[in-house]
Amino acid sequence: MGPHPAVAAIRLAVRRVLHDVLTMAPPTSPAAPPAPSPSCSSGPSCSAAPAATAGRPPLVLVACSGGADSMALASALAFEAPRLGVRAGGITVDHGLQEGSDTRAAEVVSRMRALGLDPVESVRIEVGRAGGPEAAARDARYAALDAAAERHGAAAVLLGHTRDDQAETVLLGLARGSGIRSLSGMATASGTGGRYRRPFLGLDRQTARKACLVQSLPVWDDPHNADPAYTRSRVRHEALPVLEKALGKGVVEALARTAQLSRDDADALDSWAAAVEPSVRDDSGDLEVAKLYALPPAVRRRVLRRAAIAAGSPAGSLFARHLEEVDRLITSWRGQGAINLPGRVAVRRQGGRLVLRQG
Amino acid sequence: MGPHPAVAAIRLAVRRVLHDVLTMAPPTSPAAPPAPSPSCSSGPSCSAAPAATAGRPPLVLVACSGGADSMALASALAFEAPRLGVRAGGITVDHGLQEGSDTRAAEVVSRMRALGLDPVESVRIEVGRAGGPEAAARDARYAALDAAAERHGAAAVLLGHTRDDQAETVLLGLARGSGIRSLSGMATASGTGGRYRRPFLGLDRQTARKACLVQSLPVWDDPHNADPAYTRSRVRHEALPVLEKALGKGVVEALARTAQLSRDDADALDSWAAAVEPSVRDDSGDLEVAKLYALPPAVRRRVLRRAAIAAGSPAGSLFARHLEEVDRLITSWRGQGAINLPGRVAVRRQGGRLVLRQG
Repeated sequence: MGPHPAVAAIRLAVRRVLHDVLTMAPPTSPAAPPAPSPSCSSGPSCSAAPAATAGRPPLVLVACSGGADSMALASALAFEAPRLGVRAGGITVDHGLQEGSDTRAAEVVSRMRALGLDPVESVRIEVGRAGGPEAAARDARYAALDAAAERHGAAAVLLGHTRDDQAETVLLGLARGSGIRSLSGMATASGTGGRYRRPFLGLDRQTARKACLVQSLPVWDDPHNADPAYTRSRVRHEALPVLEKALGKGVVEALARTAQLSRDDADALDSWAAAVEPSVRDDSGDLEVAKLYALPPAVRRRVLRRAAIAAGSPAGSLFARHLEEVDRLITSWRGQGAINLPGRVAVRRQGGRLVLRQG
Repeated sequence: MGPHPAVAAIRLAVRRVLHDVLTMAPPTSPAAPPAPSPSCSSGPSCSAAPAATAGRPPLVLVACSGGADSMALASALAFEAPRLGVRAGGITVDHGLQEGSDTRAAEVVSRMRALGLDPVESVRIEVGRAGGPEAAARDARYAALDAAAERHGAAAVLLGHTRDDQAETVLLGLARGSGIRSLSGMATASGTGGRYRRPFLGLDRQTARKACLVQSLPVWDDPHNADPAYTRSRVRHEALPVLEKALGKGVVEALARTAQLSRDDADALDSWAAAVEPSVRDDSGDLEVAKLYALPPAVRRRVLRRAAIAAGSPAGSLFARHLEEVDRLITSWRGQGAINLPGRVAVRRQGGRLVLRQG
């Protein structure tokens, strides 16, 4: 008799990612340049060199909070890694935000050890306030995981985000209204060299919980996850259930599929804009209005975004409404004055050119 | 003293569209081919010939249900049209679904007449069941409006959809999970030659209601709009309020902006796929796997979709999951058999080619 279906599902998901880590660089196909590419040297069967470093087998870490998703992930990694000749370790991050968080981190460490993970480590972080409590905690957490991955020479760090987390992320992105990049959720691989991997992005949270239950793994429910002070918690406990009621079951899956499709679309359009940008600049580097006008609006907006960033506007402060205003210098020209963008970048139209200068 | 701000807003929205109808063909810029285009003949100041037909001034119709949105639209059209030398008329559609709907249609006709619209007409339709009650009613309604536009030789038909309707449409599209085309909501211009125009797509429903109130226009609330048997009604009255509570005010605006950005993105990617398709076909018209592989996934998926439709698969039955399966013949080839698509189209990989045949 094989394992319970939920356990089989989490193990398969991890096995695929480990296989991927062993055989190739980041798994997402790189975007090709937009024009029909004559060079087609890397065919469908191409694969990069193994990630294993000389001598020792590669190490894969799991980031584990002790919650059901990451405990399920840790258990699947502990099971699969030895079968693929991979070393498996675990990191838990102590955010230091709650009374007794150090005790709990120590408990998670001992649970990971009990699964057979080695090395295992608890890392204490200081959470600032920049960008709000959720963003500050996330930034500090990833910095600590990056440092741990470097310290241990890990080939990858597995994260327990599920399809439900992905759906929530898409809804949060939708609320920003800043286009399909913000709908594309979390990537299956991200970070330096695709270090972070999310094997459960196609699995629902219920499967992870079930896998813990049937394996008798103790799990910890983070009270933050149910705290309505957090936007993500409201999305999880209020918005998604009502959306499912209004639109039918399958909303979570639809949102997750939207993420993947949007990500691919955004990548393709970014590559198009990058490829076309040099051809719309004149000898002095200014943008030629007539050539910009001839581009599809989606590509033109991305070229303008690239140009604004190149001129010194910070990417994080540059919103769709800024680019709309610059676009009107091209599509609705009636002698407007300079448009001011974040980072003291001014855009003006002069003699058939858009001139961007930082003041 | 000028008009109330709500009245000024609805009039401005209609004036812009009338100006557009008078001076040019459909207002959306056509998508350019993806490669840096050498031909740039239609510069920023290009505009098409006026839509006015010989002799009589052009006629613009409003489709009016008697509800607040379309009554506001009718009032703004009646005010603006004479100032721009345009004739203004109105059509109300009697769906025949409720007791006394004919009496109500006659009442709407007399209200449009009172606004000064001429010609004014009520059109009775038969609503079938195909595709569900909402789709059947919509199909019958547009067929009747098309016929009325032809009969009267109208240059455009104005529809009262607001930004709130747009937000609902985006959420309904999101639930399908079939990519950014389904997130792109309603267009500002659609139908044959861009006949249908939606001047209020950037205005909220509240502004339309306020404009009716301050102009003392009687309005009719369609009980269907509050009937939870309809998906759109559940989205309006249940899903959107909870989303606003979870994600903050501004969700409706964010959804509407997502629609516009997604539409532009989808147009650009469609044009890229159309431009690249001939170059990935061999002499006998089959698709070359190595060339498909070199494309960004977003473009490849669209090329596959085009090829499937060209081979006889009905566009409406072809879903993202079908194309994913075909895509795996390219990206995860391990000797799979033929993939069967709707419309009895089979796709098989043979000797470095994808062969699509209708059985």
